[in-house]
Amino acid sequence: MDEFSFIEKYLAPLTFGNPEALSLKDDAAIFSPKSGYDIVITKDAIAEGTHFFKNDDPYKLAKKLLRVNLSDLAAKGAIPYCCFLALILPENTPEEWLEQFAAGLKDDLSGFSCFLAGGDTTAHNGGVVLTLTALGHVTAGKALLRSGARAGDGVFVTGTIGDSYLGLQLIKNQELKTIEESRGSDSYLISRYHVPQPRISVGTKLSGVATSCTDISDGLLADLENICNCSQVGAEIMLDKVPLSISLAEADAIKAITGGDDYELLFTAPENMERNINDISEKTGIKITKIGKITGDNAVTLLNKNGEIIPVFRSGYRHKI
Amino acid sequence: MDEFSFIEKYLAPLTFGNPEALSLKDDAAIFSPKSGYDIVITKDAIAEGTHFFKNDDPYKLAKKLLRVNLSDLAAKGAIPYCCFLALILPENTPEEWLEQFAAGLKDDLSGFSCFLAGGDTTAHNGGVVLTLTALGHVTAGKALLRSGARAGDGVFVTGTIGDSYLGLQLIKNQELKTIEESRGSDSYLISRYHVPQPRISVGTKLSGVATSCTDISDGLLADLENICNCSQVGAEIMLDKVPLSISLAEADAIKAITGGDDYELLFTAPENMERNINDISEKTGIKITKIGKITGDNAVTLLNKNGEIIPVFRSGYRHKI
Repeated sequence: MDEFSFIEKYLAPLTFGNPEALSLKDDAAIFSPKSGYDIVITKDAIAEGTHFFKNDDPYKLAKKLLRVNLSDLAAKGAIPYCCFLALILPENTPEEWLEQFAAGLKDDLSGFSCFLAGGDTTAHNGGVVLTLTALGHVTAGKALLRSGARAGDGVFVTGTIGDSYLGLQLIKNQELKTIEESRGSDSYLISRYHVPQPRISVGTKLSGVATSCTDISDGLLADLENICNCSQVGAEIMLDKVPLSISLAEADAIKAITGGDDYELLFTAPENMERNINDISEKTGIKITKIGKITGDNAVTLLNKNGEIIPVFRSGYRHKI
Repeated sequence: MDEFSFIEKYLAPLTFGNPEALSLKDDAAIFSPKSGYDIVITKDAIAEGTHFFKNDDPYKLAKKLLRVNLSDLAAKGAIPYCCFLALILPENTPEEWLEQFAAGLKDDLSGFSCFLAGGDTTAHNGGVVLTLTALGHVTAGKALLRSGARAGDGVFVTGTIGDSYLGLQLIKNQELKTIEESRGSDSYLISRYHVPQPRISVGTKLSGVATSCTDISDGLLADLENICNCSQVGAEIMLDKVPLSISLAEADAIKAITGGDDYELLFTAPENMERNINDISEKTGIKITKIGKITGDNAVTLLNKNGEIIPVFRSGYRHKI
């Protein structure tokens, strides 16, 4: 189908009538800023063959695209507002693919109180490439950054770590021995890979509590390194404290927690905030676990239960370009 | 090289130290809205093989990517503020390509008083795909839209139309006979294809003057159809009034003016604004030409100098997806 028919039939409904989107007919969106709020903007790109498989369900793919961006907003403590989508598609993409993609995006935009405000659709001689720009609001001056961690702060994570990596291994059929023994969790792990859960409800409550925050996309240790670099500190993580959803041998656990794509929040907070953190966990129903502490040196180290350093050769994922 | 080294070495300098960009280390940008202004956001995608050639100069490519977005801001009357870049690159892209791309973007960001605030870089198994999201500011409530044209308004364009199409034909070596006779203009036409000129200085002066505005990306008639559809009107364009930079036979002129990629402004304004439009043209040094008028019916028609309708079978470019 041609791009205009596609936009009118499948994308225009995703504006939910918000006037800022100008019905997707004006090549731009216009909005008046909300008084008292700062604007947070993030932009992620995902490409067939790199971030997803050619035959992945377009309904879930749309959700993942939105959610990885909303996860970045959550890490800033922001509430989602609107988004801009660029779809770069192979020529003659089947209409069913387009329909399912739009349906997934619509359901999630609606679920996260967000709307489509603009973007671009084009064809090319290659696989599907998707980029999304998400805007959110945070109370003026209250955004969470990566740069505020201080020596002595605790290091916390939401949810469980490594599920998405394990789910991906299951999909690739390169199953870890330990997983083979617990087939019941397959569909859960795979769903964690396909449809991450941005921790917006936690993120929006961390202002004034957390000293720094990020989401985990590259891998727990790599993203903690980002916090440490931005904050000029180091950290010690206790491997046996990192919450996993299935028990794994040490070597497998290290692979899982450095695999990335978790989209859980990783944050630091001083000891006197631990009660607030428990309260946030209770209110949101999302597990929050203390996994280590910030140190005064510049290294991120992983410790076993005897307090010995576990050597890690690859802290997370880096694209080679 | 890996994505982090690339970002630090080549992209971080494009923030020009603006704190909103958080040094590109935080996966998001945060900014406080400017009081009294609305925010305009646009997002365009360009792909190798569809919008540019594999061996196109990356320095110029970066400029074109930015400029096609700034052209959308210009059409809204907005002043550029910042942008977000997604680079989806083939694996092992040569560092020289990256360096030249960043250099082109830096020069143009600087020239247009804009900065890089964030984005994403990734590799994939395919050609170069680029998406850019640009933000601009416009006085609250004063953005130009496509929806305000009224019967009786004049239709105006900036600059000359068709240059980019002709430049592309020259590049493709499918040269029109008329162009072959005027080789002197080759490099000018080709440069118009590679590096369009967003008409920001005109756009920012059209508020209160123009009743509707767009930039010309799909083609003069197609973009005029967009205005007419949004405004529920029609239009008549006189072919011999459309400003060309070289003289062309009628059939060639029609191809040129419907070829798209002009990135000139196309706007409508009532007769009593013609003096203001002349003033804007004088102040900015940019030619503005009246090429027709808005009518009460729903059709866009092209007329020859005898006032006869010229049938046009393809008003502009539509991507098939």
